[in-house]
Amino acid sequence: MTLNASLLKQGAACGQEGVPPPPLLLSLLESSHHILCVSHVNPDGDAVGSLLALGSILRAQGKRPTLALQDEVTSEFQFMPGVEKIIGPAEVAHSYDLIVCLDTSSIDRIGTVYKPEIHNQIPLVVIDHHVTNTLFGTENWVDTGCAATCQMLVHLADALSAPLSEETAFALLTGLVTDTLCFRTANTDTNVLQAALRLANAGARLEYIVRNTLDSRSFSLVRLWGVGLANVQMEDGIIWATLNAESRQRSGVEPHQSDGLANFLVTVREADISATFAQRFAKNGQELIECSFRAKPGFNVSQVAFSFGGGGHPPAAGCTVSGTLQEVSARVVAALHELRRQSIDGDCG
Amino acid sequence: MTLNASLLKQGAACGQEGVPPPPLLLSLLESSHHILCVSHVNPDGDAVGSLLALGSILRAQGKRPTLALQDEVTSEFQFMPGVEKIIGPAEVAHSYDLIVCLDTSSIDRIGTVYKPEIHNQIPLVVIDHHVTNTLFGTENWVDTGCAATCQMLVHLADALSAPLSEETAFALLTGLVTDTLCFRTANTDTNVLQAALRLANAGARLEYIVRNTLDSRSFSLVRLWGVGLANVQMEDGIIWATLNAESRQRSGVEPHQSDGLANFLVTVREADISATFAQRFAKNGQELIECSFRAKPGFNVSQVAFSFGGGGHPPAAGCTVSGTLQEVSARVVAALHELRRQSIDGDCG
Repeated sequence: MTLNASLLKQGAACGQEGVPPPPLLLSLLESSHHILCVSHVNPDGDAVGSLLALGSILRAQGKRPTLALQDEVTSEFQFMPGVEKIIGPAEVAHSYDLIVCLDTSSIDRIGTVYKPEIHNQIPLVVIDHHVTNTLFGTENWVDTGCAATCQMLVHLADALSAPLSEETAFALLTGLVTDTLCFRTANTDTNVLQAALRLANAGARLEYIVRNTLDSRSFSLVRLWGVGLANVQMEDGIIWATLNAESRQRSGVEPHQSDGLANFLVTVREADISATFAQRFAKNGQELIECSFRAKPGFNVSQVAFSFGGGGHPPAAGCTVSGTLQEVSARVVAALHELRRQSIDGDCG
Repeated sequence: MTLNASLLKQGAACGQEGVPPPPLLLSLLESSHHILCVSHVNPDGDAVGSLLALGSILRAQGKRPTLALQDEVTSEFQFMPGVEKIIGPAEVAHSYDLIVCLDTSSIDRIGTVYKPEIHNQIPLVVIDHHVTNTLFGTENWVDTGCAATCQMLVHLADALSAPLSEETAFALLTGLVTDTLCFRTANTDTNVLQAALRLANAGARLEYIVRNTLDSRSFSLVRLWGVGLANVQMEDGIIWATLNAESRQRSGVEPHQSDGLANFLVTVREADISATFAQRFAKNGQELIECSFRAKPGFNVSQVAFSFGGGGHPPAAGCTVSGTLQEVSARVVAALHELRRQSIDGDCG
């Protein structure tokens, strides 16, 4: 596969001033008919939104897109029109003209809907906004200045002269809203607002989308937050909460679903960095701690996540560490303290 | 005072398609020099934002505005440039050419910065977006289609040919962001997004504003939420939490600062209506319960608030009821259940 690194323009503004869709990518889309569209495992709003939107754009152009995901779409995104059209790995066929991979930073994140032994002869187009994208496609369009892959697809629709239907706009605004936590992340610039305005003008109802995604928590989750907040601790700008497996299992909440608590904790005025530690047990009985980190601007928690074998972005990262809840949280909090000290010293020095 | 009810066009879209600033209001602003600008007691982001923005617009036009508020600006809005220029009741002078009252639905909500015996000979201009506005000014510009008074001031600046400075845009976007809970309220339409885009293009940093207002909670408040969530209850679509005076006082959080918990609880998927009950004791020892209600679209909690002597909007309302925490919460929850039943029956009937 060709690496097209020149397309990776870090921090460029998305849209007309950002990275435009490469002409070869556009011609691949235009000349193909039966197109397999995929996104990443554990699909979030931007994965599902960009997939449904591209499907709707391609269908409007007379194409026959197939939408596929490794994992089932979780309940929070089941309200999205067309979600029932997304197939799983078992239903993916052998033969397509083109594969388009959305919002996915590396090929292993597609899961088994991409079968290398069958699909590696088919051109692969990558459309993504992650800074960690490995440019694994035949053609790669990676615009890290965009807050969401869905933001890029607004420009793709323009480049294909595809009108923004209400259905497309709905899916795209869902991805934009969920990836920016409703326009509150640091990368929410005027291009994001411009894209949101266009999508709302095309008929996407912002309030309805927010109410069904970011503002939709289960009662069990909220009770679990109560458990987390009851033991919340703060020391020198680091705030953290632990969730043991028992209370988590009693609530029926999966470890990754408790992520939002870290988002909430970083809003504490006196805190620079937040962490949550969710205990779970592997099938072999091993104790594992799912760690989620969030940071205010100026602190890069992905460094700590990386040092514990995880990854992510400067303001939001995570890792899974084996050990007891008490031991792991103490060790990781110490590393977060060290990161904070270095960041503050670096700023002053 | 003249009631100008024709200007009260309920639900009209704000801006060019909405209610324009009345010509007489514009000429009063243009012909006046020393202008007293006021807003409501317990000032929120829209009160402080519209006050600072109008001050900055008027100063740019060579006017001498005085900004005054009954109550001190709370810590969450102290980050706003120019907030130190706002004076209290004691410093308000007798003589002004004009008084402009912003974001205030009735004259008693101004507090004692407005002294009728001194000020009632001075023309009074009302600029507001509340549906409950009593049109108490000499000239009233009330646009209930706007999500914030700050949204109206974008159009006022245009009508006065005043350029949107970075300082003005910052203040206006703060009001717009706080009154729409960062673009998630039901009245967040394309005109709101259009206004936000213009303000961001003028240099107002959205992320910075959100981080310092909506996403800035004290550690004490978050611990108090933990107490509330520990006793959270849900029954037939009504979710509620109680906060006793002891835990509230221990946390140092004022009753009205615990409002955000009701916003959070209404995001629970299974709930249609949320309530929080915060106990406090009056100086005479009387037990008072501060009740906050929030509702999903289709439910009008202001009806219940009104029946208990309070008020508000259909999706967000409140009241103060004397009685014990247990007795009041039981009585009010019963009324909320009744409201919900009637709303659902009404929808089906």
